[in-house]
Amino acid sequence: MTGKTLAEKLLSAKAGEDVRAGDYIEAQVDVAMAHDITGPLAFQTFEEVTGGEGDLFAPGRTILTIDHHAPADGVQAANNHNAIREFAAEHGAHQYDVGDGICHQVLIEEGHVAPGDLVIGADSHSTTYGGIGAFGTGVGSSDLGTALATGELWFRVPETLRFVVEGDLPEGVYAKDLILRFIGDVGFAGCTYMAAEYVGSTVESLPVHQRLVLTNMAIEMGGKTGLVPADDRVARFLEAETGQAVELPAPEDRRSDDDAEFASVHEYRAEELAPQVSKPSNPENAVDVGEVAGTDVDQLFVGTCTNGRYEDISLVASVLEGETLASGTRMVVVPASGSVYRKLLATGEMATLVDAGAVVQAAGCGPCAGYHQGVLGDGDVCLATANRNFPGREGSMESSVYLASPATVAVSALYGEITDPREYDGLPRFDDHALAEVEA
Amino acid sequence: MTGKTLAEKLLSAKAGEDVRAGDYIEAQVDVAMAHDITGPLAFQTFEEVTGGEGDLFAPGRTILTIDHHAPADGVQAANNHNAIREFAAEHGAHQYDVGDGICHQVLIEEGHVAPGDLVIGADSHSTTYGGIGAFGTGVGSSDLGTALATGELWFRVPETLRFVVEGDLPEGVYAKDLILRFIGDVGFAGCTYMAAEYVGSTVESLPVHQRLVLTNMAIEMGGKTGLVPADDRVARFLEAETGQAVELPAPEDRRSDDDAEFASVHEYRAEELAPQVSKPSNPENAVDVGEVAGTDVDQLFVGTCTNGRYEDISLVASVLEGETLASGTRMVVVPASGSVYRKLLATGEMATLVDAGAVVQAAGCGPCAGYHQGVLGDGDVCLATANRNFPGREGSMESSVYLASPATVAVSALYGEITDPREYDGLPRFDDHALAEVEA
Repeated sequence: MTGKTLAEKLLSAKAGEDVRAGDYIEAQVDVAMAHDITGPLAFQTFEEVTGGEGDLFAPGRTILTIDHHAPADGVQAANNHNAIREFAAEHGAHQYDVGDGICHQVLIEEGHVAPGDLVIGADSHSTTYGGIGAFGTGVGSSDLGTALATGELWFRVPETLRFVVEGDLPEGVYAKDLILRFIGDVGFAGCTYMAAEYVGSTVESLPVHQRLVLTNMAIEMGGKTGLVPADDRVARFLEAETGQAVELPAPEDRRSDDDAEFASVHEYRAEELAPQVSKPSNPENAVDVGEVAGTDVDQLFVGTCTNGRYEDISLVASVLEGETLASGTRMVVVPASGSVYRKLLATGEMATLVDAGAVVQAAGCGPCAGYHQGVLGDGDVCLATANRNFPGREGSMESSVYLASPATVAVSALYGEITDPREYDGLPRFDDHALAEVEA
Repeated sequence: MTGKTLAEKLLSAKAGEDVRAGDYIEAQVDVAMAHDITGPLAFQTFEEVTGGEGDLFAPGRTILTIDHHAPADGVQAANNHNAIREFAAEHGAHQYDVGDGICHQVLIEEGHVAPGDLVIGADSHSTTYGGIGAFGTGVGSSDLGTALATGELWFRVPETLRFVVEGDLPEGVYAKDLILRFIGDVGFAGCTYMAAEYVGSTVESLPVHQRLVLTNMAIEMGGKTGLVPADDRVARFLEAETGQAVELPAPEDRRSDDDAEFASVHEYRAEELAPQVSKPSNPENAVDVGEVAGTDVDQLFVGTCTNGRYEDISLVASVLEGETLASGTRMVVVPASGSVYRKLLATGEMATLVDAGAVVQAAGCGPCAGYHQGVLGDGDVCLATANRNFPGREGSMESSVYLASPATVAVSALYGEITDPREYDGLPRFDDHALAEVEA
């Protein structure tokens, strides 16, 4: 028998038996998450399943956030927020409130997820947790509501689609460019119900915040989950974030076996990659930035669970330091968490952004899904660090969203048009940067 | 013949003849303003009036702002923003964008309004400009659209309802408490189509930011305008804000004659006033704070064209310094302008607010009118520095809004219930504070 993939290993541990791709299993859930849109519906299911008298499977591992419509942008949103608060108070769940940030960022920062965990979230970007070696996946509200009561959920064990990247990323090229390229190559349905596994020396050299970009967007090619094998860097990252010691799974449990079977393997040389931009209206429309350079931009959006972390926004601030946005261009910055927001305040980088003309909003999902905080009008063109650019995603069906890295967004802000970030001298290189930071 | 009121004098100058209360006049407009809700409709009228080929009466004195739905909270809002941008670009109007702040605050900070001016704004709180001795009044979009073309508008010269306040305000009592008391005494329609004129030693001792509170809320008792006689303090305030020399009208043109006729005169002793709170759901429901002390509060809102100025938010920060919001209580802070926002950033007061648990949003109208950035749900109770608490004003028809000063809101935030601000030791006193600042 062949070896196992990382996805198979992670789910075997949670199923309590040796499982393989294609198997239907019942697995123990470690962490369950819902937010202000998906939570209230999940609570209804939970009440039905428990007859209104049951307990959460694990109150301390049930996490509820208020992020999508935060602060409340309407009465329905406000009522949903109150439903989150009331359910959490009644059942003892961990609850985060307006301004605390986006679910995925908060769960990782606050140490609710550990490498090896099985995390289900009622949000499609729950694939993110694979950036720290957990099996994270999005589920519907009713699945979540049931799991809140039972602590179990059924899965079909996914096959694995493997991306191998070797070598050093050129200046101006980041994890965001990698994942846009991957999605472009396999297509928006090319990884459907498979685990996207990212390995190779390039991925190993990435700091955790960059790995999270890769796993976050696995869903944009249909992935059931996204996985980067956990390593010491993950442990150090989590220890720094949480102040708690972190025990990694045994080395053989953190990566696929050499003789595991993969649905397909895609190999890349980092040196050959240019900065990528996904054109409207699908993340799979990834092209080298040169192909769209010169496209006029009305709005720049920096944020989301993809690229709203401190390092992302700090990079943008470094480019905008002492500069102003190009005339006719506006920028909305929404940090991914309250912690990120406070760090930007403390370092003076928020002032840098505001002085350059950006508008900084309270932490949350911002205009990513077109709800508020910078919705696009007819004809508006937005260049965003976000993860989706489907028709109408950030507002009008007649608006256009291009997806890119924070570096591409920042440099484009100086010119008011999509610009190759390599035209800017001295962009931070996260791989080196991270190594220096971690070693320090 | 008796003397003239200040309102009669200001309108006489703009009508070019000696006019009296009750007269119907045609007057020259100095400044015209519209925002993202009222502008697009005004533009339609302007195009009709001019046949699509006319010029603005004065591009440099036509001011367009984006504040009510800023950043855009929906496609309609985003389209309105673009309409503002396009009209301004086509016709040469002054335009402010997302994050620049609330119309009334921006027009004053940026020196668009001078004492003696006649200002019409397509926003009901355009009475605010009387705080610097201008005749400001709100008009409908179609009236504004016509005036944009002609520079003229008809008025019925208002009678004047005079509030005279003598003596020193006690600690914990501010202009907001005065105006809530006035509205409570005359009723929400008690000043309908009259000018509310505020005089006396107490008013004279108030810094401009506090006078603006009095004039801003004149509309909440039906006032056509609110007026505080301009003095040297106004000139110094405007010079400090704009860096430009300011020439005041002649002394006799800045105040009512001693023998002017008033519709009624209401006299107060400052020492006798307690902090006021207006109960739901009308600003006229003003009571001494003691009558509602202990009322549980879910949300605190600091901002608006009434009390979102630097001094207001700075006061709140001084109370919250090193503290945290009471459990179960949340606070939304929305600075009235980008300038206020940047000052809070620079002084570290924004960090103080955020560390205490507040959420700070980009400058604008915030949740004041229930659009976004902290809308209330069913059953929510909000204590706000805002100007209106009509049913559903900040969200659900089943929510409740209490109005109070920034001091009352700040101190209440520490307890999670409406609290007499005099329970807090060492609240700033704006009258003294201002004197010290102006003299310095």
